[in-house]
Amino acid sequence: MHTMVIALGGNAILQKGDKGTAENQRRNIGKTAAQLAVLAKEGYRLVITHGNGPQVGNILIQNEAARGKVPEMPMDICGAQSQGMIGYMLQMCLQNALRECGLNIPVSTVITQTLVDKNDPAFSHPTKPVGPFYCRQWAQERMEKYGETWIEDAGRGWRRVVPSPEPKSIVETPSIKSLVAQGHIVICSGGGGIPVMETEDGSLLGVEAVVEKDLSAEKLASSIGAQSLIILTDVNGAALHYTGSSEIWLGEVTLPDLVKYYHESHFFEGSMRPKVGAIMRFIEHGGKQAAIASLDRAIEAARGETGTRIIA
Amino acid sequence: MHTMVIALGGNAILQKGDKGTAENQRRNIGKTAAQLAVLAKEGYRLVITHGNGPQVGNILIQNEAARGKVPEMPMDICGAQSQGMIGYMLQMCLQNALRECGLNIPVSTVITQTLVDKNDPAFSHPTKPVGPFYCRQWAQERMEKYGETWIEDAGRGWRRVVPSPEPKSIVETPSIKSLVAQGHIVICSGGGGIPVMETEDGSLLGVEAVVEKDLSAEKLASSIGAQSLIILTDVNGAALHYTGSSEIWLGEVTLPDLVKYYHESHFFEGSMRPKVGAIMRFIEHGGKQAAIASLDRAIEAARGETGTRIIA
Repeated sequence: MHTMVIALGGNAILQKGDKGTAENQRRNIGKTAAQLAVLAKEGYRLVITHGNGPQVGNILIQNEAARGKVPEMPMDICGAQSQGMIGYMLQMCLQNALRECGLNIPVSTVITQTLVDKNDPAFSHPTKPVGPFYCRQWAQERMEKYGETWIEDAGRGWRRVVPSPEPKSIVETPSIKSLVAQGHIVICSGGGGIPVMETEDGSLLGVEAVVEKDLSAEKLASSIGAQSLIILTDVNGAALHYTGSSEIWLGEVTLPDLVKYYHESHFFEGSMRPKVGAIMRFIEHGGKQAAIASLDRAIEAARGETGTRIIA
Repeated sequence: MHTMVIALGGNAILQKGDKGTAENQRRNIGKTAAQLAVLAKEGYRLVITHGNGPQVGNILIQNEAARGKVPEMPMDICGAQSQGMIGYMLQMCLQNALRECGLNIPVSTVITQTLVDKNDPAFSHPTKPVGPFYCRQWAQERMEKYGETWIEDAGRGWRRVVPSPEPKSIVETPSIKSLVAQGHIVICSGGGGIPVMETEDGSLLGVEAVVEKDLSAEKLASSIGAQSLIILTDVNGAALHYTGSSEIWLGEVTLPDLVKYYHESHFFEGSMRPKVGAIMRFIEHGGKQAAIASLDRAIEAARGETGTRIIA
């Protein structure tokens, strides 16, 4: 059996210009689910992971708007809420799409924690922006009152940034692996997983951070022994000299070449760099096939026919 | 192996007078988790389900407070969010409690949909109150604009009511069953599960409703072939002539006797009645042991030593 981890970009759930209603999200997810059902029909064992940026952003806005009435929840809990919300929509759309394909494969969403190292250097350099832009006064109040880190983005206002530590392990690996072994489709590790760390006594504790979802997807894929990792996004792969006059889109590429390009800083942080990093690591960790491709070309990408791809 | 479904009442997460902060909820859940870990150590295979009333109420308040900025989500999605939130806290606290007991048992939360019949008579008689109280003007606007049903509670204001249909099946039964068979602890069916119905073409669709969590817990327990169903709440069982001068608390009771008391209307709707109904059904459907007991007596209740209990 061929186990394939598919990492869905934010555009699988919300697209530019969408208002973010439940209907919007369901329509987008429905289109993706139809492609995933085709892959399931072709015999791939699917594990689906996804982004949660706009959804957790909205939950943060809702928390703030109601804070006089309802206690604000910390980021780990907001992340858990977004996993429940997106997982539910994905599993229902996928169950419906499978049924339409005449398939009877159980689908479930597993709420997932990602273990990070409390000594990760990311904790002293928060870089990942979360939530909407605010005015300087608001940012200053939050910095003073809660010790949060906020940065100014010229012309757009102030935005909170949180640490983006490396994923050390996916806490729920045994449950995910066990479901996959039974032939079930699993949705998990949404938004990179809920970041948790081990305290002195070994117990888990949620942290205010965001793990890069592509790096988590790699950790997940390697941990469960998947054969392939397909990262779907809004462009059909990675490019050298991106947007420059000598821009070259990468198709099939060897691992050493991709590593070289990676170190030549062709890929932007917070965008293509973690995706390229994820597929490199996956092959280094024993994966057979990895690709970055456009969401609407998921089927070809899975077949190894399009996108930036490495075959071990 | 003895599989036990434990249905946690709302007091396992929030207790009277709690403000509902994340810290509050974690502290309460931690106490319950410590008891559950003892049961796991005694060899029971646990499946945990829980209420979500206050949490989904808060999510509804947040949705309303931010509705000028963020689209309001329908109740099925709010329910899914609450499953993610509570499931995450429960699984982490349980993982920590198990580690303290020297146990290495995987725990996971499965986002759960509960299938209901679109022709269920409950849809024409909404009875289940959700969210906070509002003024008459607000209620009237929602009734006219969205076709919602609101009722007045003398002196407290207006409150939305939604249908409370019967659970027909637990959609994610195969995944839950498969995890339990591997010896994992599963948290699922939170808040009674997200109510979904089958449309004409057989696809699933979320509905604005709330399934009684105790009835869902019974459906879950029977579907996975559990031996016992333990419903934990804020009182240690059911009573005849409750709060009256001839009040009699029920201990070990036969199924026929309990059925008789049930039909004599000893148990209040929306409170003890669905719990008694759930344990009756569970035994009728082949369950071996069922009990209703106080949350802080979970261990004795599981051992069949306290609470209102039926042994088949």
